[in-house]
Amino acid sequence: MIRIGIVGGTGYTGVELLRLLAQHPQAQLVAITSRKEAGMPVADMYPSLRGRVDLSFVDPETAPLKDCDVVFFATPHGVAMAQAPGLLAAGVRIIDLAADFRLSDTAEFERWYKMEHSCPSILAEAVYGLPEVNREAIRKARVIGLPGCYPTSVQLGWLPVLEPSAVAAAGGDLVELDTLIADCKSGVSGAGRKADVHTLLAEASDNFKAYGVSGHRHAPEIAQGLAAIAGKPVRLQFTPHLVPMIRGIHSTLYARLTPAARKIDFQTLYEERYAMEPFIDVMPPGSTPETRSVRASNMVRIAVYRPPDSNLLIVLVVEDNLVKGASGQGVQVMNIMFGLREDTGLTQLPVLP
Amino acid sequence: MIRIGIVGGTGYTGVELLRLLAQHPQAQLVAITSRKEAGMPVADMYPSLRGRVDLSFVDPETAPLKDCDVVFFATPHGVAMAQAPGLLAAGVRIIDLAADFRLSDTAEFERWYKMEHSCPSILAEAVYGLPEVNREAIRKARVIGLPGCYPTSVQLGWLPVLEPSAVAAAGGDLVELDTLIADCKSGVSGAGRKADVHTLLAEASDNFKAYGVSGHRHAPEIAQGLAAIAGKPVRLQFTPHLVPMIRGIHSTLYARLTPAARKIDFQTLYEERYAMEPFIDVMPPGSTPETRSVRASNMVRIAVYRPPDSNLLIVLVVEDNLVKGASGQGVQVMNIMFGLREDTGLTQLPVLP
Amino acid sequence: MIRIGIVGGTGYTGVELLRLLAQHPQAQLVAITSRKEAGMPVADMYPSLRGRVDLSFVDPETAPLKDCDVVFFATPHGVAMAQAPGLLAAGVRIIDLAADFRLSDTAEFERWYKMEHSCPSILAEAVYGLPEVNREAIRKARVIGLPGCYPTSVQLGWLPVLEPSAVAAAGGDLVELDTLIADCKSGVSGAGRKADVHTLLAEASDNFKAYGVSGHRHAPEIAQGLAAIAGKPVRLQFTPHLVPMIRGIHSTLYARLTPAARKIDFQTLYEERYAMEPFIDVMPPGSTPETRSVRASNMVRIAVYRPPDSNLLIVLVVEDNLVKGASGQGVQVMNIMFGLREDTGLTQLPVLP
Amino acid sequence: MIRIGIVGGTGYTGVELLRLLAQHPQAQLVAITSRKEAGMPVADMYPSLRGRVDLSFVDPETAPLKDCDVVFFATPHGVAMAQAPGLLAAGVRIIDLAADFRLSDTAEFERWYKMEHSCPSILAEAVYGLPEVNREAIRKARVIGLPGCYPTSVQLGWLPVLEPSAVAAAGGDLVELDTLIADCKSGVSGAGRKADVHTLLAEASDNFKAYGVSGHRHAPEIAQGLAAIAGKPVRLQFTPHLVPMIRGIHSTLYARLTPAARKIDFQTLYEERYAMEPFIDVMPPGSTPETRSVRASNMVRIAVYRPPDSNLLIVLVVEDNLVKGASGQGVQVMNIMFGLREDTGLTQLPVLP
Repeated sequence: MIRIGIVGGTGYTGVELLRLLAQHPQAQLVAITSRKEAGMPVADMYPSLRGRVDLSFVDPETAPLKDCDVVFFATPHGVAMAQAPGLLAAGVRIIDLAADFRLSDTAEFERWYKMEHSCPSILAEAVYGLPEVNREAIRKARVIGLPGCYPTSVQLGWLPVLEPSAVAAAGGDLVELDTLIADCKSGVSGAGRKADVHTLLAEASDNFKAYGVSGHRHAPEIAQGLAAIAGKPVRLQFTPHLVPMIRGIHSTLYARLTPAARKIDFQTLYEERYAMEPFIDVMPPGSTPETRSVRASNMVRIAVYRPPDSNLLIVLVVEDNLVKGASGQGVQVMNIMFGLREDTGLTQLPVLP
Repeated sequence: MIRIGIVGGTGYTGVELLRLLAQHPQAQLVAITSRKEAGMPVADMYPSLRGRVDLSFVDPETAPLKDCDVVFFATPHGVAMAQAPGLLAAGVRIIDLAADFRLSDTAEFERWYKMEHSCPSILAEAVYGLPEVNREAIRKARVIGLPGCYPTSVQLGWLPVLEPSAVAAAGGDLVELDTLIADCKSGVSGAGRKADVHTLLAEASDNFKAYGVSGHRHAPEIAQGLAAIAGKPVRLQFTPHLVPMIRGIHSTLYARLTPAARKIDFQTLYEERYAMEPFIDVMPPGSTPETRSVRASNMVRIAVYRPPDSNLLIVLVVEDNLVKGASGQGVQVMNIMFGLREDTGLTQLPVLP
Repeated sequence: MIRIGIVGGTGYTGVELLRLLAQHPQAQLVAITSRKEAGMPVADMYPSLRGRVDLSFVDPETAPLKDCDVVFFATPHGVAMAQAPGLLAAGVRIIDLAADFRLSDTAEFERWYKMEHSCPSILAEAVYGLPEVNREAIRKARVIGLPGCYPTSVQLGWLPVLEPSAVAAAGGDLVELDTLIADCKSGVSGAGRKADVHTLLAEASDNFKAYGVSGHRHAPEIAQGLAAIAGKPVRLQFTPHLVPMIRGIHSTLYARLTPAARKIDFQTLYEERYAMEPFIDVMPPGSTPETRSVRASNMVRIAVYRPPDSNLLIVLVVEDNLVKGASGQGVQVMNIMFGLREDTGLTQLPVLP
Repeated sequence: MIRIGIVGGTGYTGVELLRLLAQHPQAQLVAITSRKEAGMPVADMYPSLRGRVDLSFVDPETAPLKDCDVVFFATPHGVAMAQAPGLLAAGVRIIDLAADFRLSDTAEFERWYKMEHSCPSILAEAVYGLPEVNREAIRKARVIGLPGCYPTSVQLGWLPVLEPSAVAAAGGDLVELDTLIADCKSGVSGAGRKADVHTLLAEASDNFKAYGVSGHRHAPEIAQGLAAIAGKPVRLQFTPHLVPMIRGIHSTLYARLTPAARKIDFQTLYEERYAMEPFIDVMPPGSTPETRSVRASNMVRIAVYRPPDSNLLIVLVVEDNLVKGASGQGVQVMNIMFGLREDTGLTQLPVLP
């Protein structure tokens, strides 16, 4: 059994971790912390867990986190890096669902998150926890910076056309790297479980809008990830939108094809690239994946379009932002780190309708 | 033109007042206050008003409220009673959308609203602003305590069977006054525009629950109103529920019929009682009124059922909680107070779908 | 492994059966029929099942249903009774999710479902599949009439106060059996996956209404069930409402207490009655169960209120109409019939948010 | 008073026409037809109109349409062209909300709508009813082909950068005309009020997906309109998506800027172009227009972005698909045709929240 701690378990990624780990055959929940709710049974806050999770929130100061094999941080940005040195010294591995270990450039981190990075040396060894890209590095990592919800969907959507192997096979870039457009749509749970007027039902329901068009924290993360995949810089337009639904991200990706891409069969390229991936489903040509087809599951579904009379490649990607976009990916990464089958505890079927 | 001030215009009843008054042919908006947002154009907060409402929020201290003919309070409880003496002294009439002037018993007020009542003498002259009950008193009132959203629907639903004229005609009470049940369902805007975890879309959407079953502030108000109508005490079970929608209240009312009610034709009783009311629509037998059939309008629709093999009278009532349940009723009351046709500025058709 | 057939798998209870059975360790899906969609892979209709359910729909004429141990009918009313004789003769057990085997009185069946009952003799041996009431009979049954979604929630809500054991202990009926009121609210999936204007998103969203107030098919089923529990007739007012959400039923139950009930501790009565039930959670006093707290799970949560200054007992019940209200209950019943642990394949945690 | 007929009034654009025209000071509703519902009072189908619209549906054969000044067709495609010759001969003007008179190329019409065009000569004189482009032609038109909902938003979003005057001022095209991308999102009412599984609440709620990615009927209409504005062909990628809300379209438009565009101040360009338009609101820089900010109104709101370090122009456009995208635009066009102030009957404020 893997002994597990969760720091900051009162938000949506926290309760989703609990839902997944409570059903994970190798997981032993040791402690879940919340300074504010210390002493409250977890199931009092989340009645969905009644009878299944007996833990109470404990104060982070007194939680036996150092006795854990791994600690998840489902906290605001900045918490994980403060506690990482002590935990690592105690031999505990860390999976951070916030942004502390995502951006390798501390200046970039400080620009977007408005705080100094307190442990650049740990950041230097941290592994970006996207299994489809970094599986081997994850296996041995002590510290994981788990990708953001949008970045997961966008990177998985473009991975097959950006990888050097595909570029080499085509004899050049398949898409123009300076005009990538990611038009992304997210359910409201992506904003977290915090009191905020803009995500009230009476504000966000029966409504649709873009936000963060001038700049969003996930843009540098996506650009960093795509550049790492491609081995060279990319220029990205990232436009997030808020959808009146609870869970789900739908990314509509547009890229301009290069002449080198003329003969590529993109459907086959995607299917072959993801054939062995347990959580990526490349759908048949002409499909339009729905967010509900992955609701509450760790699956990602992808459809690829190359419209006639056009120089565009269009990729549609859906994920559940709380599962593959956060907590499910965290469990997947944990499974890799501890040598388990990668889908252990993650085989729940999507809930539809 | 009626010169109008609005105190506390940043919430939903405030913006709804603005929507209605900006289209009211006799209304002149003089000032709208918000301590927190002073200086901000109203249309910056509510883009729906761009190009139509040019006012900016002003600080309550400096707002020319005493130059108004009438001031609406769309504020938290307690604000209106603090400002009422000064305004009344200046000859300004007051319509309070909060609870300061609803409950005639100050002890009851203090029990439910956890604050002392600062001006019982004004409370004593205040008129409960339900036109279908108090039209004449409203005409001459200086201070109106506007009914709450639930109380409006429940009182209008039972008014025809409780009124002494109906009781006299039947030779006795039509329903048992000690077991009235109001099972009510409200959209989320009823909770107001305040940051609160429980009304986030990700919490309240795709979900249904009761709340306040042990006690809700509207229960004593309803009981007071029904008792005033009936001329004797009633005992009420009021069970509010939260519906994942923005606007609308649906009240399902159950009353036990007395032997005196056996021969009553309730459909006719209701139709006749409300025949002259501009905003009450008694629907044909067998109807099930929908909240959307009154969305964004001041109408109330009612259906009356007397099931065979039963001793129950069932009344279904729908209203838009922000219009007839708040701001629209406020405008209706203002029209009465200032001698206008009662539906002036209130003839918008419901928005369906 | 239990060999399982599903007749009529294209609706919501069909796909929900597939979701549950595909994760059930003792279930072997043998065939799923649809006359209209014969030949189509199930996962083409429900992409949520891609990679997990490999079956295609087969024509009911050629499906190897007689090779199954049990056949579920997730069909319109009338289909199960037509096929039951042949299957029973082949030794196949039957679980019907439709109404063919719910009402023991064929006249009542014919009145509400507008068709003749073709096999009253099978009806006579059929067991009403509510485990909390009929567990022992279910164990040996050849034919199960699975309760409707509303009836499940209402019967479980009143079971503890109606059972003869409770009545005997109190020395008389606890509640007045002639004025039971069930004010019920259901998500739209209860109407099934059929093209219908009234359940379009543009009609049912941001809207709330009652329906079937003059009479609903579930009323006689509930009355029959409650009478069977109590051992004497009951009179019920059943008022269903449509909630703009996908899954979930919330029943608000009102009963008048008798003098014999004065000293009863209802919280304890409910807790003790359901202490051993794997899928019934009696919540602490003062709770307001939410439908999402059981979303996608087989749990029922109940809260009991006895307001001061009132002669009412109020019970709040939530269930997922597609799980405990249909397919999950079907799997639970199957587990009982085949001697498995009752929660086998039904331990998924609710999906929240 | 303008005497008005409506053919096919049972759908969403029909009821929306009724809502607007019933409040229009110069409109006299003469007849509304429905073959299927002939004889039924309109208000029985749409209770929101009770007490305000007294008409009953009449059979199209007997409706006094030839006595009207103008007839709106809120019908399936193909109906208007069948009845147009007779009405025109009787001197009646026609506003078609369907597609019969949108596409000037009959081959294109027949390809997308799968029917022959029965009156190409009338098509030849028909005017495309987008006032911001064709105001003068509309004034004198006998037949109007009203734009589709998506095409209205996309054309208004790109109009200022495509018009020859802007191109001339800049000394060349401002954007590359061969890679225009319109990523559009629509509420479900855009699919109309017809029984269809895919737009059931239980299917479309809490879900997001693209559709018609391989080809949508509005794509050739948009391309035709943009080409007409620009005076030369354009190449467009149009990707529609379905949003779980009732009303509203949000178009996110991406265009690649040319070198000629480097010095253009797009904010000013848009503001000046639309300064005199009564229904177009160019929002301040950095705005993210919400669909609810135009809900139930004829307004369009637009925001323009030119991200630094990018060669893209991004335009965000919101409209209510049933108002400016259909019935409101129809009334606006009617006002122009009959010499009324263009906003007559169209000054309702948006309903927010």
